[in-house]
Amino acid sequence: MKKAAILGAGSWGTALALVLADNGHDVRLWSHRKSLADEINERRQNSKYLPDIGLPDGIRAFHQLKEAAEDAAVLVVAVPSKAIREVMGEVRKHLKEPVTVVHVCKGIEPDSLKRVSEILTEEMPEELMKDLVVLSGPSHAEEVSLRHPTTVTSSSLNPEAAEYVQELFMNQHFRVYTNPDIIGVEMGGALKNVIALAAGITDGLGYGDNAKAALITRGLAEIARLGSAMGGNPLTFSGLTGIGDLIVTCTSVHSRNWRAGNLLGKGHELQEVLDSMGMVVEGVRTAKAAHQLAEKYEVKMPIAEALYQVLFHNQHPKTAVDSLMGRGRTHEMEDLVNIMENRLT
Amino acid sequence: MKKAAILGAGSWGTALALVLADNGHDVRLWSHRKSLADEINERRQNSKYLPDIGLPDGIRAFHQLKEAAEDAAVLVVAVPSKAIREVMGEVRKHLKEPVTVVHVCKGIEPDSLKRVSEILTEEMPEELMKDLVVLSGPSHAEEVSLRHPTTVTSSSLNPEAAEYVQELFMNQHFRVYTNPDIIGVEMGGALKNVIALAAGITDGLGYGDNAKAALITRGLAEIARLGSAMGGNPLTFSGLTGIGDLIVTCTSVHSRNWRAGNLLGKGHELQEVLDSMGMVVEGVRTAKAAHQLAEKYEVKMPIAEALYQVLFHNQHPKTAVDSLMGRGRTHEMEDLVNIMENRLT
Repeated sequence: MKKAAILGAGSWGTALALVLADNGHDVRLWSHRKSLADEINERRQNSKYLPDIGLPDGIRAFHQLKEAAEDAAVLVVAVPSKAIREVMGEVRKHLKEPVTVVHVCKGIEPDSLKRVSEILTEEMPEELMKDLVVLSGPSHAEEVSLRHPTTVTSSSLNPEAAEYVQELFMNQHFRVYTNPDIIGVEMGGALKNVIALAAGITDGLGYGDNAKAALITRGLAEIARLGSAMGGNPLTFSGLTGIGDLIVTCTSVHSRNWRAGNLLGKGHELQEVLDSMGMVVEGVRTAKAAHQLAEKYEVKMPIAEALYQVLFHNQHPKTAVDSLMGRGRTHEMEDLVNIMENRLT
Repeated sequence: MKKAAILGAGSWGTALALVLADNGHDVRLWSHRKSLADEINERRQNSKYLPDIGLPDGIRAFHQLKEAAEDAAVLVVAVPSKAIREVMGEVRKHLKEPVTVVHVCKGIEPDSLKRVSEILTEEMPEELMKDLVVLSGPSHAEEVSLRHPTTVTSSSLNPEAAEYVQELFMNQHFRVYTNPDIIGVEMGGALKNVIALAAGITDGLGYGDNAKAALITRGLAEIARLGSAMGGNPLTFSGLTGIGDLIVTCTSVHSRNWRAGNLLGKGHELQEVLDSMGMVVEGVRTAKAAHQLAEKYEVKMPIAEALYQVLFHNQHPKTAVDSLMGRGRTHEMEDLVNIMENRLT
């Protein structure tokens, strides 16, 4: 039995708390909102983020970071990516022993263009972070909480740490594979939200499944192009954290990035959409970072760029998607060979 | 304006007839059923296979192969894969000049293990077949007939023939890319139906989107493994006819292979499912061929094999899927490197 603190009681943090509790660990779930921590402790549920799921007694919720984190062996970081620096700045004050940090965040910081593991390395003193592991893959929280079969990837520069986290989370319903390519895993997880927003837009425009499949296919090529240019292993994008997570995010009704895009495609304004979601839509922030990364690495990302124009420069979604569909290229292999060239460099 | 004969007035043949008629060609649509040809000519609709779509006068239907095919410049073969030999054996008697043959069939012949282009090469005398082109990609007929945006691939050993067919079909809604890899294009198109049946089963079992995304991810790896071993270009499986068609077939309600799998997952018997579909479920026949091909090329295809056991050896769907989910492998890269090794040979 390990003491695990989960920072962030959103849907994913709460679902992972369930997995760890199912595995017999001592789970402390931190929420920045006292009312949510109280609800979890008193009514054994998280009605806002994971309704209708009973939470076992093995999960205790805390409103104070100190109480949740101070004697944990494992810290699971499950806050929205834009809150990571603030939360880690606070939590590091309360740690006495080095911990294994597992992050389950899918985003890239605009302007600094840091991946989440880079942000964590900056914010956590070296002597307090035993290891850093990313857990990522096609895993809607709602389904994990229902114990539906789910597969994810545990990734770390230290193979033993990846296996430690694999062991911690693995059970009959929740299968964990290891993959040493932390860059590829993080980039696939972050960028799929950008493509999911675009896929939601095509659905919102009523363009159908054929158009969406083409968009996802080309979206994966963009992800692989940028991710490989940044040092990710091209193969990772063919795996669970690449294709797998992209598919689930673009085609499932559970996906909030897809839902946000869908509303945009139906003609709603961005701010109105974000207000209506009630949860963070990571893809919006990541779209800005993707635009900046494509420039920095001189990689062509037409879908990410079109989305950027819709989100930040008021381009009409239909105009943006139609220009994507009508692109001049007519030889499929030209696109594919471009990916391959990135793959082999 | 070209004279094009479309052999087969199922949903896909009829939708492609619409595309060609939209492009101003003279389209003859052949059905083996006189009542269907009559309905198309008299009521301008195909109520069984493409209901609610008005067919323009540019499409004329025929019940006699001779009338449809005898002076065509282009033959579009759109019959179920098991009918190809019989239909081509008949049609070749009526051709006087060499034609461009375009096939849009997605299957592999069990036992002979021939791809559709190989069957066509056997059945069509060399002097009557000017060129052979495959048209394939993520393209549900229902959406094409509604002029929703769709992208497909035109593939031939002769690049000029691929471009000729690209030009023939290309329009504002229907975008055609060329790809010279006919083996990869045909194998992706055929094998995706096998994975779609399996994806339908996981959905029928209620396993959810996380499980399906994992299945599709590993399914694509299987397709690429076998397709590359057979001589396909590994990159093709990352394109429209690989990932693209796989996604649309596994996630769209329009997919009859997915629907058949879904009914199997819900506990219906195979024969009962096939009887209820009213259309050919290509994946069932292809699953047998995939099983034989995996043996022949000594390629591991655990999903195709599990499906084969369900379809032909009465294994319970739940047992088959659970054994897939619980496989021993725990390092994702082992799987991915195996694909890569195939990719680089």
